[in-house]
Amino acid sequence: MTEPTFRIGFLLFPGMTQLDMTGPYEVLSRLPGSAIHLVWKEAGPVASDRGLAIVATDSFVTCPPLDLICVPGGPGINELLTDAPVLDFIRHQAWGARYITSVCTGALVLGAAGLLYGKRATTHWMSHDLLAAFGAVPVKARVVTDGRLITGGGVTAGIDFALTILAELGGRELAQAVELGLEYDPQPPFGTGSPERAGPELEARMRALSDRIQGLRAEQVRRAAAALAPA
Amino acid sequence: MTEPTFRIGFLLFPGMTQLDMTGPYEVLSRLPGSAIHLVWKEAGPVASDRGLAIVATDSFVTCPPLDLICVPGGPGINELLTDAPVLDFIRHQAWGARYITSVCTGALVLGAAGLLYGKRATTHWMSHDLLAAFGAVPVKARVVTDGRLITGGGVTAGIDFALTILAELGGRELAQAVELGLEYDPQPPFGTGSPERAGPELEARMRALSDRIQGLRAEQVRRAAAALAPA
Repeated sequence: MTEPTFRIGFLLFPGMTQLDMTGPYEVLSRLPGSAIHLVWKEAGPVASDRGLAIVATDSFVTCPPLDLICVPGGPGINELLTDAPVLDFIRHQAWGARYITSVCTGALVLGAAGLLYGKRATTHWMSHDLLAAFGAVPVKARVVTDGRLITGGGVTAGIDFALTILAELGGRELAQAVELGLEYDPQPPFGTGSPERAGPELEARMRALSDRIQGLRAEQVRRAAAALAPA
Repeated sequence: MTEPTFRIGFLLFPGMTQLDMTGPYEVLSRLPGSAIHLVWKEAGPVASDRGLAIVATDSFVTCPPLDLICVPGGPGINELLTDAPVLDFIRHQAWGARYITSVCTGALVLGAAGLLYGKRATTHWMSHDLLAAFGAVPVKARVVTDGRLITGGGVTAGIDFALTILAELGGRELAQAVELGLEYDPQPPFGTGSPERAGPELEARMRALSDRIQGLRAEQVRRAAAALAPA
């Protein structure tokens, strides 16, 4: 008997931050016996927030049942939070999946699908205070595991997140080899990769720059949370 | 007068390691006043070594003169090393570019185009000993700058590489803000991201697994270096 294929699915969507997805893709595609599906409402090119277009391999209709679903983040999540077909697709897949996962603000989409209630989770630092609206228990960490829910922090945390998952699925030796193959011995040039390290001035500047999109996001989170609440 | 657009071009090719390109893309696309061109022999989807398809925006013919050219790496470079139209395109663009750059084994393609002679450069650790064939001065570092040539190490080194370039082009404050925005405060789960850190046993195992492709690569490097040598 041959081992059945382990099916990994990433949600693609217009306005995603592509590195939220391409980082984990690079790692998880090295799991032997796995197949990756890139899924959006229809197959074909999907443009990221900065323009890079990645080709979705499946639509919501053609996508097979997934063993692991991963929702990346990005400015485009604001619209997903109240997009019923997207939330239905995620809920439907989550029902049978072994792992339900997100990187960056993809966690808020899981929240809007009702999948974070009572669960420990993380997201991009700037949206961290929005997790509680979905009944999540917010945790500040690059990777947070709560049963079959695994969430990663902002953007580049997706690499740490995926190596953690790879070790769980394929063993520690495999994950160590992939870390070496990807030469993942990072040396951030400025040491400003978290609010704690960057200091209050830079954090405040970044928050001011994102004021508009974060305001719209908070409004969408309120709507999505209200839709989940029992009448 | 408006500032002219700073044109950044990435070479796409079949069998590229997409994170070599998508990491730097995520960083450099945040340079104000820049435009990114993804270039291959023809515009349209190009499949990476693990299957992910990214859409090339330009062909060699439609691509405008670039201010910065970046060549990512991956298994597919083996064929590029003796591909005259590719090497001609790179040489042609390099003539007028402010920066000539590579990530991972993309450096060997720059070498085959004759652009590494007498220059300090780096590449993926497993191909590092092939740099000398092109007259380069091999340096073990994640980012190596020699005049207008900037080379990055293997795969994830592209993020450090791009933040370094971003600081040069847009200032240190911008690069610090992008490092925070991408939450680049990495915590590699296993600490095996370089041969030195991984130890000789894991290094030997990885080299054995890549024996065939590295053998073909060494043969292609010999051919490319011979083609560059004066008769």
